Amino acid sequence: MGADNQQERLDAKWIVGFTDGEGCFHVSINKIPEMSLGWQVLPEFRIVQHEKDESVLFKIKEYFGFGEIRVNRKDFHGTRKEFRARGLENLNKIIDFFNKNSLMTSKRKDFKIFSEVIHLMNNKEHLTKKGLDKIAILISEMNRKPKIKYLESSETLRQT
Amino acid sequence: MGADNQQERLDAKWIVGFTDGEGCFHVSINKIPEMSLGWQVLPEFRIVQHEKDESVLFKIKEYFGFGEIRVNRKDFHGTRKEFRARGLENLNKIIDFFNKNSLMTSKRKDFKIFSEVIHLMNNKEHLTKKGLDKIAILISEMNRKPKIKYLESSETLRQT
Repeated sequence: MGADNQQERLDAKWIVGFTDGEGCFHVSINKIPEMSLGWQVLPEFRIVQHEKDESVLFKIKEYFGFGEIRVNRKDFHGTRKEFRARGLENLNKIIDFFNKNSLMTSKRKDFKIFSEVIHLMNNKEHLTKKGLDKIAILISEMNRKPKIKYLESSETLRQT
Repeated sequence: MGADNQQERLDAKWIVGFTDGEGCFHVSINKIPEMSLGWQVLPEFRIVQHEKDESVLFKIKEYFGFGEIRVNRKDFHGTRKEFRARGLENLNKIIDFFNKNSLMTSKRKDFKIFSEVIHLMNNKEHLTKKGLDKIAILISEMNRKPKIKYLESSETLRQT
């Protein structure tokens, strides 16, 4: 029996287990001169999988009711796909989901930081220098540390 | 909150999701001259994880009530650990578990082949040349194809 002819709806706890294995809470701060502070905060929730199991990513999308399936950007051969959710409205739903259904690995720590970032963004704090500094420091504590060019270039933080 | 101070018991569906991400059903056929046919069939169920999340492997062991936690043999740095279950009695329980709680990815196919191998072993067919051939052909269909030296060296199979 292949994965393609599986019609079952996913279970919430299954999604948590799969996320503990294959999921990623990621926040980047990207230089975008057009924005008022010159920096954009970009939070994402991703689940990466070999393309042979793409169907399960579509089921995850169906479960949440949002997100997109695309080629994983780190994969130059195009054999790895990802479910990706962006946007505050969707990510607040992702946070609700994992608050109700606890992660069991150290990804819980990343999720907690991710939640704090989304909370700051809900309050529009990422649009202030102070909020941006706070977010940069928060995400530097994540398990999978993203490159934080903002931290390297931040005058304020370098002085502290 | 780290993973270490999580006291929750694991949920069956979480284990399935985590296995769909990180688990592996593996069967090797090893040359052991002391055995009657000269070959040993060795089935294993493994879940591999970075050592920082070793605690979740111990919870998996606790859930099943058997298995061992050890350094992943493919890891020369010793930073990856694995839950490993061996032995027919334990593996029959693993099969019962995943029959009740379906895998959602293509690992379901590997599980199905793994179950067939265990079924043959329950009937002691692995102790006959015919059964050994059957097992070798079965495992050559697995997603993660193990090296099957037995197939390469089998006179019978080479002639067919």
